[in-house]
Amino acid sequence: MSNRCIEIFDSTLRDGAQGEDISFSLEDKIKVAIALDKIGVSYIEAGNPGSNPKDMEFFKKMKEIELKNSKLVAFGSTRKANINIEEDNNIKSLLKAETDVVAIFGKAWDFQVLKILSTTLEENLNMIRDSIEYLKSDNKEVIFDSEHFFDGYKANPEYAIKTLLVAKEAGADVVVLCDTNGGTLTSEIENIVKVVVTTVGGRIGIHCHNDIGMAVSNSIIAVENGVCHIQGTFIGVGERCGNANLSAIIPTLQLKLGYEVILEENILELTKTAKYISEISNIKLLDNMPYVGASAFAHKGGMHIDAIFKNPGSYEHISPEIVGNDRRFLVSEVSGKSTIVKEIQKIFPSITRESKEVEKVTNRLKELEYEGYKFEGAEGTVELLIRKTIGKYKPFFELKHFKTIGEKSWNTKEFTSTALINVIVEGKNKMTAAEGEGPVNALDKALREALEAFYPQLKEVRLVDYKVRVLDSESATGAKVRVLIESTDGIENWSTVGVSRDVVQASLIALVDSIEYKLIKDIEKKLKTYF
Amino acid sequence: MSNRCIEIFDSTLRDGAQGEDISFSLEDKIKVAIALDKIGVSYIEAGNPGSNPKDMEFFKKMKEIELKNSKLVAFGSTRKANINIEEDNNIKSLLKAETDVVAIFGKAWDFQVLKILSTTLEENLNMIRDSIEYLKSDNKEVIFDSEHFFDGYKANPEYAIKTLLVAKEAGADVVVLCDTNGGTLTSEIENIVKVVVTTVGGRIGIHCHNDIGMAVSNSIIAVENGVCHIQGTFIGVGERCGNANLSAIIPTLQLKLGYEVILEENILELTKTAKYISEISNIKLLDNMPYVGASAFAHKGGMHIDAIFKNPGSYEHISPEIVGNDRRFLVSEVSGKSTIVKEIQKIFPSITRESKEVEKVTNRLKELEYEGYKFEGAEGTVELLIRKTIGKYKPFFELKHFKTIGEKSWNTKEFTSTALINVIVEGKNKMTAAEGEGPVNALDKALREALEAFYPQLKEVRLVDYKVRVLDSESATGAKVRVLIESTDGIENWSTVGVSRDVVQASLIALVDSIEYKLIKDIEKKLKTYF
Repeated sequence: MSNRCIEIFDSTLRDGAQGEDISFSLEDKIKVAIALDKIGVSYIEAGNPGSNPKDMEFFKKMKEIELKNSKLVAFGSTRKANINIEEDNNIKSLLKAETDVVAIFGKAWDFQVLKILSTTLEENLNMIRDSIEYLKSDNKEVIFDSEHFFDGYKANPEYAIKTLLVAKEAGADVVVLCDTNGGTLTSEIENIVKVVVTTVGGRIGIHCHNDIGMAVSNSIIAVENGVCHIQGTFIGVGERCGNANLSAIIPTLQLKLGYEVILEENILELTKTAKYISEISNIKLLDNMPYVGASAFAHKGGMHIDAIFKNPGSYEHISPEIVGNDRRFLVSEVSGKSTIVKEIQKIFPSITRESKEVEKVTNRLKELEYEGYKFEGAEGTVELLIRKTIGKYKPFFELKHFKTIGEKSWNTKEFTSTALINVIVEGKNKMTAAEGEGPVNALDKALREALEAFYPQLKEVRLVDYKVRVLDSESATGAKVRVLIESTDGIENWSTVGVSRDVVQASLIALVDSIEYKLIKDIEKKLKTYF
Repeated sequence: MSNRCIEIFDSTLRDGAQGEDISFSLEDKIKVAIALDKIGVSYIEAGNPGSNPKDMEFFKKMKEIELKNSKLVAFGSTRKANINIEEDNNIKSLLKAETDVVAIFGKAWDFQVLKILSTTLEENLNMIRDSIEYLKSDNKEVIFDSEHFFDGYKANPEYAIKTLLVAKEAGADVVVLCDTNGGTLTSEIENIVKVVVTTVGGRIGIHCHNDIGMAVSNSIIAVENGVCHIQGTFIGVGERCGNANLSAIIPTLQLKLGYEVILEENILELTKTAKYISEISNIKLLDNMPYVGASAFAHKGGMHIDAIFKNPGSYEHISPEIVGNDRRFLVSEVSGKSTIVKEIQKIFPSITRESKEVEKVTNRLKELEYEGYKFEGAEGTVELLIRKTIGKYKPFFELKHFKTIGEKSWNTKEFTSTALINVIVEGKNKMTAAEGEGPVNALDKALREALEAFYPQLKEVRLVDYKVRVLDSESATGAKVRVLIESTDGIENWSTVGVSRDVVQASLIALVDSIEYKLIKDIEKKLKTYF
């Protein structure tokens, strides 16, 4: 298909940082920038040196780091009204950032110029012209963000277009049409972009927000109508409802419209990169994210799962491997026999659809689901449950007794937690005690200490995520909680789940499963089939 | 604008139930159906009686409940290949559901007919014809879902269109174009819908999935090109990446395109309904959901917040009140002075932007953010922090000492948790002990018992949500955790936050804040200004 070059402009570190719950440390920003360069976006908009000292420090630090694929961009605004460009502090700090590329925004909506900037329409044009000419005279590549362009165009098309023409005359390398409030319909974007492409021409960009859920479609339809530069954030974070989600836009451009926006092999890194950036951003990557989410290729309906076995194209628009994601079959009441059989056969290949074992496992799953368990995303626990139900399970240890004590003493604010534990391994009785950060941690330590004596490989195991979900919140702190634990030994990750009215006990159930899972896996590695 | 009538078809209880983490009890289904009827969607597709006994029971129960605005729909498929319609069990159970409306899906994609159904293209057309004629002869309103219509059209347009024409001839009241795999571009939907509207005509529907992030745009552009029936799920849940999100589609149709799809006054109930349905579905309503999310009208950037004060239209595409949502200003390092001043002035109207107090509060916020606190969505804690920092805060009680003991005894699986607590209120020393479901609950009970003696109104307070976020998961169970608690007294809800390496202590910090917040609010209600 088309060979027109499309530029991906990532603003995770600038516009993305406006999102609720997002705040990047200096180290976070460097990590994200390196990840974005690695996957190969064209531009990384990384901060606003004029408004944030942390960002200025970031740009200094980045001079020591060589980017292979991406250009670093500093963001700012056109000069203030009625002042000389040399005196504008925002423009000064933009230059201080010493990036080859700068992005500045200016107003395209007459109402914003008059009511928010409180200046004249003419002066606003001067601000755009002066700022761009000044930055070009310093040999910057200049990207002009036409703020509120679409709302501006709907209110006063002549003026909105005029801001673009002025920017272009002044030397802007790209003029970007921003749907700043995110309320523009895809059909409106289509029609307005057509006008701009014919009347303005040159390199046109698009910057969409997701306030009516159309940011991705709006960005793609803009490309289909001549835009060559797309601004967004890698996992869609951003103010209010977020920015255009690049992890959905990139594969659609590449796999469905035939543009090479990043290196072909890097599409394989899409899911990994999205997970990594969400990890650094300290937010959970949504399971239902297009292409990269954990549920994006997860199948639950029995009929669908059967069809997938016949031909994955039945219920998948692409193969998950292409974007580095995985196909999953969810174990649940509606998932049907096929899924459960498939899970069982992973461990006991000989068991068939007709075996009694399948029914036993299904019933056990239903019992536990009734108690509040959910097995979707807790593959570790499912495997243990299958082994235990089918009765070929040999326990590694028995937890005889434990006690936790937490105390805030009279005269300090200090809180101490202690745990005593008694386990039996291979007939040997082992008692340990440990202090910890709270009862769960104390129990975890005591349990590991007891078991590491027998199973040294447990030293490699650590917990990478720990989630608590209140099931019946009406019952307040006495509510039933489901604890989901993700563990790793550095090579493999696995998740286990525990349910109890007590967060400590629920955690312990998941912890014990996590340890047992690790021990089984190790034995299996040693002697291919353990049972 | 247009007065063409648009039908909203909600499938939360059928296709939505295919989503990961979604499983509805019978009671859940009834609650959701009532909520959907209340807001006034045209159709409620509530289950598949042929595949799920729970659904059959649901349809029986629903005969006792009178719906005011919506028609209940039972879902099934066309008859099996090469059998007599009277012998098809799926069709039989469809009739058993005794709904006035039924939706049945049939295949439109030749590849699916040949490879998945393993029958002939001709027999597939017979299956569609027989099934619809049979259901019409029983006086049902019949909605025909043309599965994989768009993929089918791209592979073999003649055949895909033929399935629609056969369905229409057989008497289908609506034929629905399904993007079953969710991989169709908005521009493709636009072009293909145009063809169908002209070549098939009649009542045409659309059913989109969100696998490339376009389900909302695809549904809207279909309406703009002549479709009059939209299928989706109220909060966008569904298999893989979910179904078209009706809580975004409804207000866009109503507020931006001028259709009255639900009663005008019910648009005010949109956010409440979305929250309620997500509560019943036991999933968190995403903060960044268009229109109804907690962040949908949340402002963080200082510059934006200043502009919002001048004119909300600056950074909002509609006013949040219209859809029953709220505008929020997020307290954070980038939120700027205005937000903090605004928060302070809520309590101390006299304090100005220039006062020293503003700086004191800002610094305290930054210190705590550094320790791992996040104040976004913890308005209760922010208010207490302002009061404490500005030094006009009189503590209601002092927590002198507490101790928690958790124990699993030797011979049972029982786990017991006990807490001892000692508080001083107005010089009086009160010691209490309580058993609970784990240490947090035991402490909560003991603390309430101690305080309710002095503050009986605490009996009204209960916890409605309890979130635990691991901040530095590398540290495993010893990681720093942030606990966010949402409390209610039945009238007002408030959120408080606590951070510690110990989940018990973090919870206690948030609990104490929650109680203090309640006590302050009550005093304020009594004597307008307390300080």
